[in-house]
Order: sequence, then C-alpha cells, then structure tokens
Amino acid sequence: VDPVAMAEARTHQDRLTKPRGSLGVLEDVAVRLAGIAAACPPPMPEPAALAIFAADHGVHAQGVSPWPQEVTAQMVANFAAGGAVANAFAAQVGASITVVDVGVAADVPAGPGVISRKIAYGTADLSEGPAMTLDQAVDALSAGIEIAGSLVAAGNRCLVTGDMGIANTTASAALICVFTGREPASATGRGTGVDDAMYQHKIDVVRRAIEANGYEEAVAVPEGPDAALRALAALGGLEHAAIAGFILGAAAARVPVILDGVIAGAAALAAAALAPEAAGYCVAGHRSAEPGHAVALAHLGLRPLVDLELRLGEGTGGLLAHPLVSAAVRVMHEVATFDAAGVADKER
Amino acid sequence: VDPVAMAEARTHQDRLTKPRGSLGVLEDVAVRLAGIAAACPPPMPEPAALAIFAADHGVHAQGVSPWPQEVTAQMVANFAAGGAVANAFAAQVGASITVVDVGVAADVPAGPGVISRKIAYGTADLSEGPAMTLDQAVDALSAGIEIAGSLVAAGNRCLVTGDMGIANTTASAALICVFTGREPASATGRGTGVDDAMYQHKIDVVRRAIEANGYEEAVAVPEGPDAALRALAALGGLEHAAIAGFILGAAAARVPVILDGVIAGAAALAAAALAPEAAGYCVAGHRSAEPGHAVALAHLGLRPLVDLELRLGEGTGGLLAHPLVSAAVRVMHEVATFDAAGVADKER
Repeated sequence: VDPVAMAEARTHQDRLTKPRGSLGVLEDVAVRLAGIAAACPPPMPEPAALAIFAADHGVHAQGVSPWPQEVTAQMVANFAAGGAVANAFAAQVGASITVVDVGVAADVPAGPGVISRKIAYGTADLSEGPAMTLDQAVDALSAGIEIAGSLVAAGNRCLVTGDMGIANTTASAALICVFTGREPASATGRGTGVDDAMYQHKIDVVRRAIEANGYEEAVAVPEGPDAALRALAALGGLEHAAIAGFILGAAAARVPVILDGVIAGAAALAAAALAPEAAGYCVAGHRSAEPGHAVALAHLGLRPLVDLELRLGEGTGGLLAHPLVSAAVRVMHEVATFDAAGVADKER
Repeated sequence: VDPVAMAEARTHQDRLTKPRGSLGVLEDVAVRLAGIAAACPPPMPEPAALAIFAADHGVHAQGVSPWPQEVTAQMVANFAAGGAVANAFAAQVGASITVVDVGVAADVPAGPGVISRKIAYGTADLSEGPAMTLDQAVDALSAGIEIAGSLVAAGNRCLVTGDMGIANTTASAALICVFTGREPASATGRGTGVDDAMYQHKIDVVRRAIEANGYEEAVAVPEGPDAALRALAALGGLEHAAIAGFILGAAAARVPVILDGVIAGAAALAAAALAPEAAGYCVAGHRSAEPGHAVALAHLGLRPLVDLELRLGEGTGGLLAHPLVSAAVRVMHEVATFDAAGVADKER
C-alpha cells in the first residue's frame, strides 16, 4: 500500500466540511483504500464481486457439525438458484456472485455463476493427519488467485470473500490456533449451532488435529512462506486455501478485498503468513459470533465494520460492509471543502 | 406494533435456508419491521427519506462549542448545494434529503429540498431558564409530525432522522439527564470536538441548565405527557422537538424510523415519554461517540446497528444503517425455505 496516497487522503479528509475525525473508522477505511489504489481519492469500490468458494471436509466424519455433509452441495445449488441469504444481500448491495467449487464432495452441476475448479472431493480428516497435500494447497491457492484476477479483469473494483463448507469452522479454529498461538478452547466456536457436548468434542478434535500434524499447542507456526504453506495444507480446507489465494490475487491487482467471517479470517492469516503485505489490502467486513474470528482480526490488526452477531458465512457479513466502504470513499469524491462551501472552520 | 406479525416473522425466519438465528441482530430488525407494518413479510423499507431538522441554540453563548453559530446556516446551504457528508451518504444508499429550518438563527433561503417551518431564531439559553415556551415546543413537534406524514404520503417507506444545530449536543445531554436520571458527567460528551477545559465547562452548563429549570440532578422526570412536554421545552432544541414529532408521525403512519445519533436519541426519549409505544417504531441506526447516546439507547431498549465512532450528526449514522435494515427485510422476501430449496435441515 502506498503511504503517499494515504497521507494525501488523511489531509484531504481534514479539509472537508465535517469536524475532523468525525467519520471515525470510516476515515481509516478511506485512507486504506487510497493506499491500496495508490491514488487519492481512491476509485469507488464498485462494482463489487462476491466469490463463494465451496468445499467439503474430511473432519466432518468426527461429528463436529449437526448438519449433513450433503448440505454443502445443496447450498451450492441454492446459490445458483438465487435462494440463499448471500443472494439476497448481494442483490441489496449490487454485488455479483460467483460460486467456485474447489472441493465439494459431490459432483456439482456447472451453470451460470458456478465455476468448477475442483481439486478433490473434500479434504482428508485433519484430526488424523494433513488435510491436504502441499500440491493440493498450491492448486487451491492458484484457483483463488486466478478467480480474483479474472473478476478484476472483468471490471470489478472490490472483491468480497465467501465460503460454503459444512465443518469448516473446525478447520478455521485449527488454522487460527497455529497461526496465532492460541489454545483450541479460545479459538473454537459453536459454528452454525452445536450443543454443549458437541462443542467440547469439537475443541478436542481441534486439539487432536494440532497434535496429529506435529504442531505444539499455544505455539504459533514459525514465520515464512514454507511454514505457512505447510500449516495451511495440514489444517485448512480447500476453500481456506482458495480464499487465501483470492486475497493474494486482490492485493496483486491493488483492489480491496472485504473479508467475511471466521473462515476468511483464518484464510487471511495464511495469506498474511505467505505475504505479509497482503493484510493491508483487506477490509474486515464484520466480526462474527465465532470467538476465533476476533482472535484472527486482532492478529491481523483489522477492525471489523459490522458487528451484529452474524454466524452464517457465505460472504453475508462481507456484503453488508460493502455500502459502508463505498460511503467512506464517496465522501472523498463528493463532499465540499470548507473553503469551497463557504463554511466557517472550527475556532482553534 | 403487532405481536401476531412479529410471531409470524420469527417462525418464517426459522424456515429459511440458514442456521436458525444466524443473522443475529438482523433477524430482530426484520421481526420489528413486521410488527411495525403489521404484515409478514414487512414491506421493503424503500424508498427512504432523510429529514434534517436545523435550528440554533441560545446556550451557544455559554461557549460550549468551538464552532461559530453561523455554521448552522452555512451547513443548511451546504446540504442544499449537495456538498455535505449527508448528501454523499444519501446518494450511496438511495435516500432523499429534506432540510427543514425549524429555528436557524438567520434567514435561510428557501430552495429545492429546503422547507421553512421556522418557529424562532434559535432557542433561549437553557442554562438560564426554559429554552422554549410550551407553545414553541408544540409547534416544533407539530412540524415534525407534519413532515413525517407528508414524506410517507409521498411514498416513502422508511424515515431517517437528521439534525443540524451548533451546540445541540449540550441540549441533548441535558435532555438525556432529565429523562433517564443520569448525572451530567455521564451523559455529556465532546460533541464535534471540544478540548478538556471546554468539556468540563460544558458539563457545568448542563448541570446549571438542569437546576435553572427546576429539575433535580440524577432524578428522572415524572412520567406522563405533560411532564415530558415541559422537560422537552425547558431543555431541548427546536430540532429535538421536531425530531420527536417526526418519530411520532412515523409511528402514526406505521413506518419505521431510523434514528441517527445522540440528538435523535435525546429526541426519542422525549417521544417515548409522550407516547410510550413510539419506541417500538424506532430502529437505532448507530451508536455515536457521545456517551449520552449509549445511555439513551439503553433506556429505550434499542440496539444500534452501526458502531464506528461517528460523531458527525446530519443523519449520517442513520443513513449508513439503511442498507442493513433493507437487507434484513429482503431476506424475508427472497430467501428460499429448506423445503423449497431441497436443502437438508440440521439434525437435532
């Protein structure tokens, strides 16, 4: 990100007809987008494109979710038919949706808005060993990079991450533990709805996954891209790897990427471990009800824009943040300065 | 608000293809809007109309703001010219803006989108006695009711409160103290930017205002519309009274009203004291950086949707919440049920 454009944006904000700093966090968002685009004012982050990366998880066999695995494929069909919450929210904010099958455990019919980049029929069980081979993780990263690049080439000026994968909050918790050095109990949540007994079991599964893959509890993985790739492959899902690639692709194109919830947060930790500057291209769309999400955002230094106890995934929290990001940038384009408007400035 | 429609909305939410409760606070918003409209699903809250009520304050003479009083009129001209942050945010979310002069201390040129309902050239100094006569307060309430009614008659299905008035956070703090029984220090903030010395002075002015009008510190006003009107007249601004009327007008028309910041929160306390059911028609758009705002929202039982440290006013925080409210309602119209989409429900 470009520090000169960011400084210019900060200065411009202070000339506009509003008390200095009175737009709070949105001023920081506008400054960040100036840095991403290396331009002041930054271009409007429109149109926006949501990519929902869908995949299944071997760890589902451990009984970490009350939902049958088939729901992943069924929800892909629901996205294609326009019936999911992500479709309604995308319509509300004017974003397009692209669904990318990177690892659904069933054959997914191709169709408008559904792209196949299937790498496997789900991951292996991360509680017994690596979820992915290194090659699979690289392929999923590459798919995410490619999708980001093609969405930007098609004219999109803001990307939004989305995910679909029953049991993917378990993989997210494991990733967050190893990338931040937190204990499983503090990074594991109830996902889309587990009872007390299943929750304790889920924490145990996360703990076993960390050990089975040769990591120590409460010790963060060593720095560097090789260690990051190995951790991502060991504990991630194919959608986590694809979203990490999607973030890297957005950064390479100097386009902001709005992160959705805990799956995106875990993926962003991997992306930032692979390329530390990637975090600067991310906007945290929201903070979900998953405890690991706050851990991931704090580690990344990102402040979420929406905080409404969502725990749905699909990109829904990211989509809701898009109008806020657009509003922050629009101020830079359209609001008059004190001088131009003939408004008296504060007496100092 | 209609409890039957609310119960229907709750039941409908649980049939949609999403984990139950996974839209968090937005599910409550959709249920509330069903109750307001007495219909499930409720109508989309579109188009939305922002009304910015502008007025000046005699208490400005006490040195409670670093901004000259002329800025109120200058900002009205800025709204009319399209140069303020409220204009940019309204454009972003597709809302119209109506500016209503209920008490600016200068003659404001009429023009497109600027309506005169001037009741006085500013209020009297509330630190020395009543800010308004009872008749003035009633006239301002009536103006707000009338504007709400005419905006709904013009087809708007969501109203948003806005305000402009240099020194109006001082009046807001005084109103919040007497309607909630809080101490001045806990309800008074730095507004659009006062230094430490001016902040202590501002707290003192709020304390003097409470005493000068015959109220006791840390004792809430007695219940009932007569006491509420007297308190509103004694300590409010003309825009506070107009916004209270605007809320009552929205409630009478069964249309939701999104509250902006601390000025709206203070006005909503007055509206709820005049007619307790009015609070049910309000959606708290955001929580501002002013400490009194959180006090007011807690008293009203409202949870804010946006929490980004805004402290600008004008309706900016209310406008930012509008896409969130629309998204919540859109889910009720467009998302498929588990049965219709062929998606398996959670195993219980």
